[in-house]
Amino acid sequence: MNNFNFYSPTEFVFGKGRENEVGSLVKKHGGSKVLIHYGGGSVIRSGLLDRVKASLDKEAVPYVELGGAKPNPVDSKVYEGIDLIKKEGVDFILAVGGGSTIDSSKAMAAGSVYDGDFWDFYCGKETIKAALPVATVLTIAAAGSEGSGDTVITKEDGMLKRGAGSDYLRPRFSVMNPELLATVPKYQIACGATDIMAHVCERYFTNTTEVEITDRLCEAVLCTMVKETPRVIADPNNYEAMANLMWAGTVAHTNIVGVGRDQDWNSHGIEHELSAMYDCAHGAGLAVIMPSWMDFVYKHNPMRFAEFATRVWGCAMDFENPEVTAKEGINCFRKFLKSIGMPINFVELGAKEEDIPAMAAKMGIEGTTGGFVKLTTADVEEIYRIAAKASI
Amino acid sequence: MNNFNFYSPTEFVFGKGRENEVGSLVKKHGGSKVLIHYGGGSVIRSGLLDRVKASLDKEAVPYVELGGAKPNPVDSKVYEGIDLIKKEGVDFILAVGGGSTIDSSKAMAAGSVYDGDFWDFYCGKETIKAALPVATVLTIAAAGSEGSGDTVITKEDGMLKRGAGSDYLRPRFSVMNPELLATVPKYQIACGATDIMAHVCERYFTNTTEVEITDRLCEAVLCTMVKETPRVIADPNNYEAMANLMWAGTVAHTNIVGVGRDQDWNSHGIEHELSAMYDCAHGAGLAVIMPSWMDFVYKHNPMRFAEFATRVWGCAMDFENPEVTAKEGINCFRKFLKSIGMPINFVELGAKEEDIPAMAAKMGIEGTTGGFVKLTTADVEEIYRIAAKASI
Repeated sequence: MNNFNFYSPTEFVFGKGRENEVGSLVKKHGGSKVLIHYGGGSVIRSGLLDRVKASLDKEAVPYVELGGAKPNPVDSKVYEGIDLIKKEGVDFILAVGGGSTIDSSKAMAAGSVYDGDFWDFYCGKETIKAALPVATVLTIAAAGSEGSGDTVITKEDGMLKRGAGSDYLRPRFSVMNPELLATVPKYQIACGATDIMAHVCERYFTNTTEVEITDRLCEAVLCTMVKETPRVIADPNNYEAMANLMWAGTVAHTNIVGVGRDQDWNSHGIEHELSAMYDCAHGAGLAVIMPSWMDFVYKHNPMRFAEFATRVWGCAMDFENPEVTAKEGINCFRKFLKSIGMPINFVELGAKEEDIPAMAAKMGIEGTTGGFVKLTTADVEEIYRIAAKASI
Repeated sequence: MNNFNFYSPTEFVFGKGRENEVGSLVKKHGGSKVLIHYGGGSVIRSGLLDRVKASLDKEAVPYVELGGAKPNPVDSKVYEGIDLIKKEGVDFILAVGGGSTIDSSKAMAAGSVYDGDFWDFYCGKETIKAALPVATVLTIAAAGSEGSGDTVITKEDGMLKRGAGSDYLRPRFSVMNPELLATVPKYQIACGATDIMAHVCERYFTNTTEVEITDRLCEAVLCTMVKETPRVIADPNNYEAMANLMWAGTVAHTNIVGVGRDQDWNSHGIEHELSAMYDCAHGAGLAVIMPSWMDFVYKHNPMRFAEFATRVWGCAMDFENPEVTAKEGINCFRKFLKSIGMPINFVELGAKEEDIPAMAAKMGIEGTTGGFVKLTTADVEEIYRIAAKASI
C-alpha cells in the first residue's frame, strides 16, 4: 500500500426534501452572499430553484443567480461568473445541478480570488492556493464532483478539455435528494452510471498490490451499480434504487475507494478528446472507451481482470486460463452498458474513425502516459480503433 | 434508505514515517500550544513520543505532556487533563495512542471549554456544543476513534462506562503509521480486529432494507479483516497486512459503512458492562458477546445472517433452509475469533455467570432497547448466558 492522505471534509446532507435546508447550511458554513449557479431549465421547471431560493430567503441570505452552465462546461461562462462574483461581492458559490454546473462553479471559486487567468490552473501553469467556498445541490448521480476537489473545463478556443484539482475546491456541503433523479432522462441516468463505474475502474486497475481494503471497496461500489442501475432505468420512481445509485456515485469519487494505490486515468483522458470533439455525453464516451481500454490492457494482468469478472459480474473462475475469465468480465461489462442504453462503439456514439489520429494527437502525450499500462500515442490510436468497431 | 448526514472532516495522513509531519500538521490546523496525551510506556520505549516532540520542536510549537491514559479510560484522568489545559493555556490536544487515549483526549476537549462537569455529556445531561481541536497519532487499529466523534469514559465511582459523541470531537487530523502495529502484542491486535468487525456488524444487522451500497461496503471491510488479521497475527512485521488492517479499522467507524440505515449497538452496550466489571479488553469482551448476540437474534431475519455467511465467510447458501446457512456463518465467526486468539466464552474471558443479573441490571434498560431486535433486561441476561457457555 502506498502512503496517502485522505481528506473529504464535505458535509453530505442526503435524502428526501433536504434542499429545504440550504439556507441554514449556507449560514452554518459561513456564507453571507451567494451566487446560485445552475444549468438549463430543468431546475426551474422542477421547482428546485424556487425551493432553494425560498430556503435562502427564509434565512435572509442574499443571492444573485447565473444560469446557463452547459454539459462540458466552457471557459466563457466561468469568466462571466467571476465578473459577477467580483461585482456583487459574493462570498459563497452554490452549484445547483450536475457535474458540469459544479465543475463550472469550482472554476469560478478558484478564479475569483486569483489575480491571473483562471485557465492557468487548468493548463498546469499554476496550482490553486485559495478559493471561495463552494457547495452543491446535486441533481444527477454521475461525476462525483459533489464530493471531490476536481473540476474539468473546456476552453472553447481549440476545444481543449482540461482538469484541475485542489482540496480548496471540495464542497463545504452537498445536498443530495435522490427524488430529483426521477425527472432525469434515462439516457442521462445511464451516462451517469457509466461515469461512476469508470471512476471506480480507473482506481481498481492498478499496479499496486496488497490493497485488499480498497479493492473490496471498489468491488462494493461496482456491485451496487450493477444491481441498482437497471432498477432506476426500469422505474424512475424507484426511490430506493435512486438513493443507492446516488450515494454510490459519491463514494466512487471522494477517493475512499482509491487511496493507497496507483491510479490510471487514461480512459478518462482518452474519452475527454471524444466528448470535446463531438460534444457527446462524457458517460456515453466512457461506455465506448472504458471496455476498449480493457481489451487493450488486460493481458498486462489477467488475474486482476479475472477478479473483476468473478467478484463483480459473477463469472466462474477458469484457473487454467484466467485470460478467458478476464475477457468474459469485459464482455459482461459491455453487455451491461448496452443493456442500460449506452453506445458501445463509434457508430452508436456518432464518432468517426477518420478523426482518430487527430484525437490521439490532441492528448499531447510526450513519450508515454503513466498508469496501469503506459500508453503511447499509437496505443491510444489502437484503443480508439478497438472502440470504433466494438461489439458484443 | 433513511435520510442521513455524513460528515468526516478528519485529514488522514497514512503511511510510513508520517508521525514526523505532526508539527506542520498542528500548525496547519491552527494549534499554537499542544497537550500531548498518551498512555503507558510503549510510546516512550518505541521512540514514538520523541519523534512527535521532535516534529513539534522543529516547527517551534510548544507543548505540555500528560501520560497515564488507561485502557477503559477513567474520569479522574480527564479531570486532571482539563485542569492542565486551563492552567497551561493549551489550544490543541494531540492524542498519541489507541482508542482509550483518544477517547480520554476527546473528553478533555469538550470538558475544558464547558463550565460544568464534563460527565454531564456522558450521562446525557448536556450535549456537546464546543470543544478544543483534537488530533491523533494512532498506535493500534481498533476503536476507530481516530475517525469518529465518539468517546467512551468510565466513571470510577460505580464503574459506569458511558459514551458521548459530537462532530466537534472529530479529529482534525489523524496520523496513521502501520509500522507502529509491529510492536503491539498479538492479543491486542486480535482485540482490535474484533472491535473493528463488531463496528461493522452493529451497522450491518439492521431492519432497514434497500441499503445495497452500505451492505456491500460493510462486507468489503469484513472480508478485508478476515483476510488480513491472521496475516498480522502470523507475522507482526507484515507491513502490507498491517496497513490494510489499520485503514479498515478507520473505514469501519467513520460511519461510511453505516449511513442511511438503522444501527444496533446493543452488543457494544452489553459488552461495556463486562469490561467495566472485569476490566477486560473491550475487543475480548466483544468476541464473547457479539456471536452470542447473533445466536439470540438470527431468527429475526435469517436471510440477513445467510448473506453474512455467504458473502463474508464463503459459506454455501442453503436456499431450502437459510437458518442453517445463518448458523454456519455465526459459527465461522466464532471459529475465526478463536483462531486469532480471542476468548469466546465467560471462562476464557475470566467472567462469572453469577454476575449476569448484576451486569444486565446495570445497563439500566427501561422496557426495551432499540435495535435490530429490541431487548429486555431478561433478553440481555439470556445473551450473557449464551456467552457464558459458548463453544465451537
